[in-house]
Amino acid sequence: MTKPTARPKYQLFTPGPVQVPRDIRSQLAGDLVYHREAAFGKIYASVRSGLKRVMLTKGDVFLLTSSGTGAMEAAVSNLVGPGDKVLVAVSGKFGERWRELCIRFGGYVDSLTRPYGESVPPMEVERHLRATDTIKCVFTTLTETSTGALNDIRSFGEICRRLNRILVVDAVAGLGADEMRTDAWKVDVVIGGSQKALAVPPGLAFIALGPRAWDQVESAKGTCFYFDLKSYRRFAEKGQTPWTPAISLMYGLDLALRRIVKSGGVSSYWSMHRRMAQFVRSGVKRMGLELFPENPSNALTVVNMPKGVDGARVVDRCKKEGFLFANGQANLRSKIVRIGHMGPVKKSHMVKALASFRRAIKAEAGRRR
Amino acid sequence: MTKPTARPKYQLFTPGPVQVPRDIRSQLAGDLVYHREAAFGKIYASVRSGLKRVMLTKGDVFLLTSSGTGAMEAAVSNLVGPGDKVLVAVSGKFGERWRELCIRFGGYVDSLTRPYGESVPPMEVERHLRATDTIKCVFTTLTETSTGALNDIRSFGEICRRLNRILVVDAVAGLGADEMRTDAWKVDVVIGGSQKALAVPPGLAFIALGPRAWDQVESAKGTCFYFDLKSYRRFAEKGQTPWTPAISLMYGLDLALRRIVKSGGVSSYWSMHRRMAQFVRSGVKRMGLELFPENPSNALTVVNMPKGVDGARVVDRCKKEGFLFANGQANLRSKIVRIGHMGPVKKSHMVKALASFRRAIKAEAGRRR
Repeated sequence: MTKPTARPKYQLFTPGPVQVPRDIRSQLAGDLVYHREAAFGKIYASVRSGLKRVMLTKGDVFLLTSSGTGAMEAAVSNLVGPGDKVLVAVSGKFGERWRELCIRFGGYVDSLTRPYGESVPPMEVERHLRATDTIKCVFTTLTETSTGALNDIRSFGEICRRLNRILVVDAVAGLGADEMRTDAWKVDVVIGGSQKALAVPPGLAFIALGPRAWDQVESAKGTCFYFDLKSYRRFAEKGQTPWTPAISLMYGLDLALRRIVKSGGVSSYWSMHRRMAQFVRSGVKRMGLELFPENPSNALTVVNMPKGVDGARVVDRCKKEGFLFANGQANLRSKIVRIGHMGPVKKSHMVKALASFRRAIKAEAGRRR
Repeated sequence: MTKPTARPKYQLFTPGPVQVPRDIRSQLAGDLVYHREAAFGKIYASVRSGLKRVMLTKGDVFLLTSSGTGAMEAAVSNLVGPGDKVLVAVSGKFGERWRELCIRFGGYVDSLTRPYGESVPPMEVERHLRATDTIKCVFTTLTETSTGALNDIRSFGEICRRLNRILVVDAVAGLGADEMRTDAWKVDVVIGGSQKALAVPPGLAFIALGPRAWDQVESAKGTCFYFDLKSYRRFAEKGQTPWTPAISLMYGLDLALRRIVKSGGVSSYWSMHRRMAQFVRSGVKRMGLELFPENPSNALTVVNMPKGVDGARVVDRCKKEGFLFANGQANLRSKIVRIGHMGPVKKSHMVKALASFRRAIKAEAGRRR
């Protein structure tokens, strides 16, 4: 008997992947459908319809077999050609990723960058767009997982529509946790991923496009093939994806989406996340700690480490007790700890996780005295 | 209780995805590891080492979260920049896909195309390369899933190395089923996918690169980000992937690879496929039918339909009996039927599937008289 590689024993409180409910995971172990056969059309239609209800759009939604970064590339490579001017509103690592992607695909990139922890003021976007007629597309982030900051997408949408620009939003980390109304907020392109608030394992991403985005796709001269959205649209007409998709994951995603829709829709799901975020924030504040972002998301809580406490050591201590939080990335390593509460996290589990967090902070603070 | 979408009831004899053993599937339902944490390094190292043993290379191997087409794009977008001249040896739909990809990414593409069912004679490749000094890379296909034809990669490798060109082989459909020795056959880049002979669900692809390929990657000015192999190399040094991978699928792939390595290595696995291919071919010939390709792969058997018999109807009949074969694609639709025997197919299952196939052929032939 060949033995599988052993798995670590911890519960995930990381900002993606997250702890996946057992019945969603067991969907992954079921029989496969052949993706060039009529029965595939059913599961694909079901997933697309669920995504439309969660993304609140009547536009097109396609499923990509990739990480969220793949969906970001799908947006950039279809909308931006060499020499096209774009604006990127950056409030953390994932805003920087939009910037890098647009540069790689030949865009001329203006960017508005705020210090980590801050959100980008919509007025800054408006000022820059008014001064720069040639900008066609604006890229930004709903929830910055690197800092826990939330951007004011509703205002961005209002500005971009009024000034006739395409707004592209990375909602990978926020989708399902933070309020995000694609059509009502006048957002042209939204991307998301399976492994965040939808609480499905990683491997699937999605992209929603409205009619204005399609006009831009038609006129842009982007470089793409695997992520060519025109291929996705053509194949979707016959209920298929252009390339072999991650079929097992689709069944997990389908069940997760059906459950959200059945139990009150995405707005109830946002409320559940808001309540959990409030619970975690107040717990953290009772420990005498401060939040890192000024305008926090409901998907994760990012906590400043007190002077002399190394966040990486705090994370290690909690891991040994069976609770995995996330470190800060790059410059923020050791300075912050990120507590994910995406998906249907049980309050009793979070209570235990926060108790472990408190013990670790105390122990590390004591160590330094 | 929210109900999952119902699944079709058939056994897959399609050329990918294939029927996946239950214990491999149940690996997908297990707990997740966090991909930015030390424990991830173990599973990634195990998968990479298994892939090196199956691909028979001491070069680098990376895991991509995508279909096989994603791995094709990884090869093209890293090796070919605008204006770079390439040669594509085409013997079916997947050879055409190399051609289209190279064009999309700005390559100047020469191609040698053989009618569907034939393989590309190595001598033609040699003649063309001798006449065209500027060609840097040659792209071809080990096993053409669209026709069942096998190309002589060993000879291609000998020619390309002698003439100092980079050879890139799509082994998605053949890897594990047909003999393929990356290093010994002097192949610089090989790509594969999880859902073929390795018998894991779809969603993961891989790419192997030798030192000569890296030189080309360094000098080429390709357009890539999600598939940027330099990012994959940099992250692999710390045991990570640059983007969130399809973690659940990795555990399934890991077990499948360990099993191949433990039970005699990839050459035994090839032998198992050869025996099954011989069994299916002789069964089909006993029905008075002819094979479509002149040099058949051991991954699938592609059968010519007798005059007056519609292959699509044959496939439909067998599906109703619980056995799913694949139609011919595009022009070959209805003219051929493709019987996949990738992975650990049980002989007793194949006997039943072939009996169903024989009944369907008979019924359809009778219908036309």
